[in-house]
Amino acid sequence: MPQYWTDLVNRLTPYVPGEQRSGTGVIKLNTNENPYPPSDQVLAAINNVTADALRRYPDPQSADLRQALAQYHGVNLDQVFVGNGSDEILALAFMAFFKGKKPLTFPEISYSFYPVYCDLCNITAKMIPLNNDFSLSPDSLSGDCGGIIFPNPNAPTSMAVSKSDIEKLLQDNPNVVVLVDEAYADFGADSVIGLIKQYPNLVVSRTYSKGRSLAGLRIGAAFANANLIEGIRRVKDSFNSYPLDVIAQAAGVASIEDDAYYQKTTRKIIATRERTIELLKGLGYTVLPSSANFIFASPADKNAKRIFSELNKRNILVRYWEHEKLDQWLRITIGTDIEMDKLIQAIKDIS
Amino acid sequence: MPQYWTDLVNRLTPYVPGEQRSGTGVIKLNTNENPYPPSDQVLAAINNVTADALRRYPDPQSADLRQALAQYHGVNLDQVFVGNGSDEILALAFMAFFKGKKPLTFPEISYSFYPVYCDLCNITAKMIPLNNDFSLSPDSLSGDCGGIIFPNPNAPTSMAVSKSDIEKLLQDNPNVVVLVDEAYADFGADSVIGLIKQYPNLVVSRTYSKGRSLAGLRIGAAFANANLIEGIRRVKDSFNSYPLDVIAQAAGVASIEDDAYYQKTTRKIIATRERTIELLKGLGYTVLPSSANFIFASPADKNAKRIFSELNKRNILVRYWEHEKLDQWLRITIGTDIEMDKLIQAIKDIS
Repeated sequence: MPQYWTDLVNRLTPYVPGEQRSGTGVIKLNTNENPYPPSDQVLAAINNVTADALRRYPDPQSADLRQALAQYHGVNLDQVFVGNGSDEILALAFMAFFKGKKPLTFPEISYSFYPVYCDLCNITAKMIPLNNDFSLSPDSLSGDCGGIIFPNPNAPTSMAVSKSDIEKLLQDNPNVVVLVDEAYADFGADSVIGLIKQYPNLVVSRTYSKGRSLAGLRIGAAFANANLIEGIRRVKDSFNSYPLDVIAQAAGVASIEDDAYYQKTTRKIIATRERTIELLKGLGYTVLPSSANFIFASPADKNAKRIFSELNKRNILVRYWEHEKLDQWLRITIGTDIEMDKLIQAIKDIS
Repeated sequence: MPQYWTDLVNRLTPYVPGEQRSGTGVIKLNTNENPYPPSDQVLAAINNVTADALRRYPDPQSADLRQALAQYHGVNLDQVFVGNGSDEILALAFMAFFKGKKPLTFPEISYSFYPVYCDLCNITAKMIPLNNDFSLSPDSLSGDCGGIIFPNPNAPTSMAVSKSDIEKLLQDNPNVVVLVDEAYADFGADSVIGLIKQYPNLVVSRTYSKGRSLAGLRIGAAFANANLIEGIRRVKDSFNSYPLDVIAQAAGVASIEDDAYYQKTTRKIIATRERTIELLKGLGYTVLPSSANFIFASPADKNAKRIFSELNKRNILVRYWEHEKLDQWLRITIGTDIEMDKLIQAIKDIS
């Protein structure tokens, strides 16, 4: 049979998302979903989308949603882009700013989709090791390259870097785009969205999947000066004119309007996180300081794989990687207090 | 200021979708939307998506929707791919099968996104003129190339080609992927989905935006043998793991289950189309035989631009292209009988 795949397909190693096991009794702490539902106002907005709107194409530029985000973050409409989850936005941004340039710099331990995008776009990855304590020194990302990307807070380590460190990175690398992936920034990191007005090389990406409890609807946003946003838009309009459906656009606006609800659920998650960290430390775990809706934790005997497997048997899903620098660690999403109590009890039972 | 855009962005000429003007009194016959709403069963499925499902990631492989489509079309689960509208699927397929190969062959007059995808993927376009009567001879697409793509029925001409002609094309070009874009196939063309079992080089793409009245939700599907589907999936999982949100997946399944409704609305549209064609012919228009939910029509004086502008002033939107081979023609979406009567009356008023 002839080989129909392109060389591109043959060289790809696709991203593998966390398991989406369902059913009653499953405690899902493996994909960093929010344990609290979206607000009633969001549910109402979804139910209010008319049959007439469903049969029509959505606004290809998602103007209402972008306007809501612009107002919320204090930027202009032409400084906002929205897409089908922040993953899609990252893919478009790789094509818009990094493809065909010098190597792209990012932390060696980071979001595992970055090297996949590099493969997709034929970009060389320049991966910089974290410090021994898993912290990231933004300075370490500086230097000759075609661009810089990192999550803040980082994943799966949960640790954040300061706004001033990012500002220095932007100043030290004025000729390349610096993409700060703020997927988890709602839970404690300092956002740098406000810096887009000063730094023409800054792109900040955001997602509704974590803080806004809408992983099911696939909404992402990016903030940058109008020139960079226009670059992303040109790729988007050469790939898929209508990435965001009419329901996602409506829900996205309602979520911004009902911000008080999300402030409240975010505070609850942060409180549960801090309580869980203390409980795990009481069981001898090492836990990194977290600015995210997940924690990165290592058992006293370093045998994270055993804990992962034993939890899995008990229908408690956490994330574990067979990677030499990560295999003593578990990434655990923060659920409700009840879920975290069950996790702690299971860990006690296993030991 | 430094140039942050990649060469890719600089060379792109993005696709321009039809205008999405809204408001009461607008008769929108410019984007080939279905004039009838999605079925009550689809609306119920949307409203039944739980808050819990919204806060979680959707199934990244959309298994339920693919299973429903597989059963409906009599193929296997691993022969079905779904994506964020058929536009996204086409983009992924260009990367999976055409990028980096010889020129891609497609009709000169055809879906105007094809040359945009070629730009995006750096593929040379080998554009084959239609016959003088705007018909397409599939044979004309045969020959040395890296792949073949065409819509059946074609757009904006509305004319279909026969299954046997497509079968000959597949036999004559066994070493390249032939992608048949069946966006409008619900309205009269013979589908070739059944041929995927015999021809390892055939990909058929479909959309929910036309026949299934769900342009607002962005659902597309592709059918091919498992090897080709795996190729598209590998690109998708290197671009965006979750392109289809949980509501779109649920609505997509419900739409298949309520097929009788769509058979009925499709028959209505076909009846309205034939009636409209006769009325326009009565006004001296030349109208091509249509197998789609739109017609391609030329006024007696060939001044399509004037009709387009005059209709536009009256809030009746149709599609017009400033292209030397198309500028005597209008592409008119089939609306309800009432909408088409208003169109006919407006055309009479203008003359």
